[in-house]
Amino acid sequence: MNAQAIDQYFKDHREQHLEELKTFLRIPSISSLSEHKSDIRKGAEWLKEAMLKAGLENAEVFETEGHPVVYADWLHAEGKPTVLVYGHYDVQPVDPLNLWESAPFDPQVRDNKLFARGASDDKGQTFMHVKAVEALLQLNGELPVNIKFIVEGEEEVGSPNLPQYVEQNKEQLKADVIVISDTGMQGPGRPAVCYGLRGLAGIQIDVKGPKGDLHSGLYGGAVQNPLHAVVEILESFRDKEGVIQVEGFYEDVLPVSDEERAEFASLEFDLENEKKELGITEDFGEKGYSFIERTWIRPTLEINGITGGFSGEGIKTVLPAEASAKITCRLVPNQDPDDIVAKLRAHIEAHKPAGVTVEITDFDKGKPFLTPYDHPAIQAAGRSYEKVYNVPTAFTRMGGSVPIVAVFDEVLGLPVVLMGFGLSSENFHAPNEHFHLENFDKGLRVISDYLFEAANL
Amino acid sequence: MNAQAIDQYFKDHREQHLEELKTFLRIPSISSLSEHKSDIRKGAEWLKEAMLKAGLENAEVFETEGHPVVYADWLHAEGKPTVLVYGHYDVQPVDPLNLWESAPFDPQVRDNKLFARGASDDKGQTFMHVKAVEALLQLNGELPVNIKFIVEGEEEVGSPNLPQYVEQNKEQLKADVIVISDTGMQGPGRPAVCYGLRGLAGIQIDVKGPKGDLHSGLYGGAVQNPLHAVVEILESFRDKEGVIQVEGFYEDVLPVSDEERAEFASLEFDLENEKKELGITEDFGEKGYSFIERTWIRPTLEINGITGGFSGEGIKTVLPAEASAKITCRLVPNQDPDDIVAKLRAHIEAHKPAGVTVEITDFDKGKPFLTPYDHPAIQAAGRSYEKVYNVPTAFTRMGGSVPIVAVFDEVLGLPVVLMGFGLSSENFHAPNEHFHLENFDKGLRVISDYLFEAANL
Repeated sequence: MNAQAIDQYFKDHREQHLEELKTFLRIPSISSLSEHKSDIRKGAEWLKEAMLKAGLENAEVFETEGHPVVYADWLHAEGKPTVLVYGHYDVQPVDPLNLWESAPFDPQVRDNKLFARGASDDKGQTFMHVKAVEALLQLNGELPVNIKFIVEGEEEVGSPNLPQYVEQNKEQLKADVIVISDTGMQGPGRPAVCYGLRGLAGIQIDVKGPKGDLHSGLYGGAVQNPLHAVVEILESFRDKEGVIQVEGFYEDVLPVSDEERAEFASLEFDLENEKKELGITEDFGEKGYSFIERTWIRPTLEINGITGGFSGEGIKTVLPAEASAKITCRLVPNQDPDDIVAKLRAHIEAHKPAGVTVEITDFDKGKPFLTPYDHPAIQAAGRSYEKVYNVPTAFTRMGGSVPIVAVFDEVLGLPVVLMGFGLSSENFHAPNEHFHLENFDKGLRVISDYLFEAANL
Repeated sequence: MNAQAIDQYFKDHREQHLEELKTFLRIPSISSLSEHKSDIRKGAEWLKEAMLKAGLENAEVFETEGHPVVYADWLHAEGKPTVLVYGHYDVQPVDPLNLWESAPFDPQVRDNKLFARGASDDKGQTFMHVKAVEALLQLNGELPVNIKFIVEGEEEVGSPNLPQYVEQNKEQLKADVIVISDTGMQGPGRPAVCYGLRGLAGIQIDVKGPKGDLHSGLYGGAVQNPLHAVVEILESFRDKEGVIQVEGFYEDVLPVSDEERAEFASLEFDLENEKKELGITEDFGEKGYSFIERTWIRPTLEINGITGGFSGEGIKTVLPAEASAKITCRLVPNQDPDDIVAKLRAHIEAHKPAGVTVEITDFDKGKPFLTPYDHPAIQAAGRSYEKVYNVPTAFTRMGGSVPIVAVFDEVLGLPVVLMGFGLSSENFHAPNEHFHLENFDKGLRVISDYLFEAANL
């Protein structure tokens, strides 16, 4: 491989690549909101065309029971391994909209960062893989490996239909390694290959009391208030340090070796700077675990939203008819999401407040994932990063969830390489999401190199 | 007084009176929402015109630092007592709007009930006093007593400016008795004179954590979640039976005599029917107190609203930057609202969750009120009810607050007669507020009779 020629190619095409990515980012493909159904389809169609333009073949938008999956491949490297690239073209909702400095679907470059919903998570990173293929095909007329892309539109809602798609298309998706760029680096200029992810399980809790809102003066004290009831349930989940009180919650947690914890401790991590970046005066959580460990190897239970009663300006002395809360748990190996939801349900049943009814709705689930960090496919990714960033690659875990990773692991039985280019400061899932273009530029080169590395697996 | 002539007059003018009241109800005079400021003024001006039309004199819209006060009088009954009538022309907000069967400011009569925001609380009841004056002046050319009206536009936000108005206009408001119709009857066909009200004190609690919303996967477990923090504070306020855990909260509560509790026990009250009406399967609250006692003679602490995080459709795995809650306490004699707020603040300080900042904002306050039920002005009101309803009048307390009552009691030193015509099923402060027109018709006659009763005080 002629690394210089590839570098030059990406320099020459930088403006063109960014303009194309902006077009992709202008499509408001929010998967959780039904009013964006047609935008999701637009996102899929745009990606299919971009893949064909890159030189990929057999590009197709496959229907599922939810939002479609985009597939494409290039399979002319006879006798060579096959790399399966996974990404997602759907994005998170954008509220609160008033906190965005520029509109979420009007991509803007400021200070060498690209601001838009999906810039980093995950349209930007998926787009880089397509452009790496295009570059190699333009320069060499061929790729060093066979390659397949599978890009879904439901990652941000827990990938409800992808497991079935993967099951039903095992043959189409056959490969030797899966590469996913949907995670973060260790910090600016500090590449990381991630070998473990937390899983996800969550529920919505709906508490219903009287049939209509009541005057808190006329009935307060004699009728249970659904807001107090939902607070009572929520407060029972954790103690004041965040240790989860749900019976059996921790019982399947896989112990983490002292060696692995020593590796985490050796990673460059500036807690004071992290607190400053986050705008908090103190960190929080389980005693005996570091900030990194609390987010990588310990499970959590977080309230994501509470609704009920009056939220307008001023005072309204209402005793509301209903209240609700959304909670999600991050799970670590070997916790099982179905088992955790069953335990949450049993906990609520055992802590049910007087005078109200409680309904529980499951959210979509994702299993936690772990692969040995000394696997050759992962070490190869470390080498590709080092060639471009000129620093050692960290081998890390991550606190987030890519639920489909566990499915790839289980159904296809392949090593999963999480090769991320995001930074934790880039506001995924929050207002002002952005992507540092330094990592866009370097990432294109890392991905291109990895296709050559993968040829020797 | 010729009761028959008065009855006939109200029959003859019924349609006209209802049409006028509907015009009053069409004005969306919501005092807590700043965008309705001009509607509040419209409400005041409408009432002034209606008072002049009724034959009242010196009608004027007086400015305050908030919404205006409407005053009018008729002072030609030389040597006779003066009755001061208090009411309010402002109304509660209307959300959730989708639960209204007809629009809140499009008054409609269904099943002899008038549906509209303010129909019962308190435009409808205030309007009745104006029409009683008009009827007597039309029939007799004079009133049996002197009368003064003071009608405010800030009752639903805690009457922040009326105390100052009352202080500064003691001479204008000089009277022998104050009559207020802003409370409820004991039940359909069961009149009640109320001699005690609960007071009100409340706060808004704003909890701030990280400077922006965070991804719950990347940070969950290591950063305090403001929603958990607000839940921790809220749960600390009460035990599971609703007994308030704030230190010293109950210490100033005036004991209630066994005799008075025996009177409450003798009142007709069907708990099973009440539960059915409210749509609850069990009642709730402090052990050792009846449903009536929990709402009349015991103080409360109720959450009126919680806001924070994601409230849309589906799942968003956010750790929000902030969360907030509104709470109000109903107070009983001799609890002091300022003292209670100080105790709430001290409690929060003592129970402050880790990793967040907490800001507290006071809401407007109202003192509890109590007057002896054997006072002649109150007994006279009982007689007026009995003449029209033909059943004994109950002498009751009430769980709601009319904060200004305590001010009248303190500043003007007059007996306060709470002569209400509402029913507890009429959804004050909730969707589908309405007023039973049977009590509109009878109430006009009761109020007219009371002006003759008051002449002998």
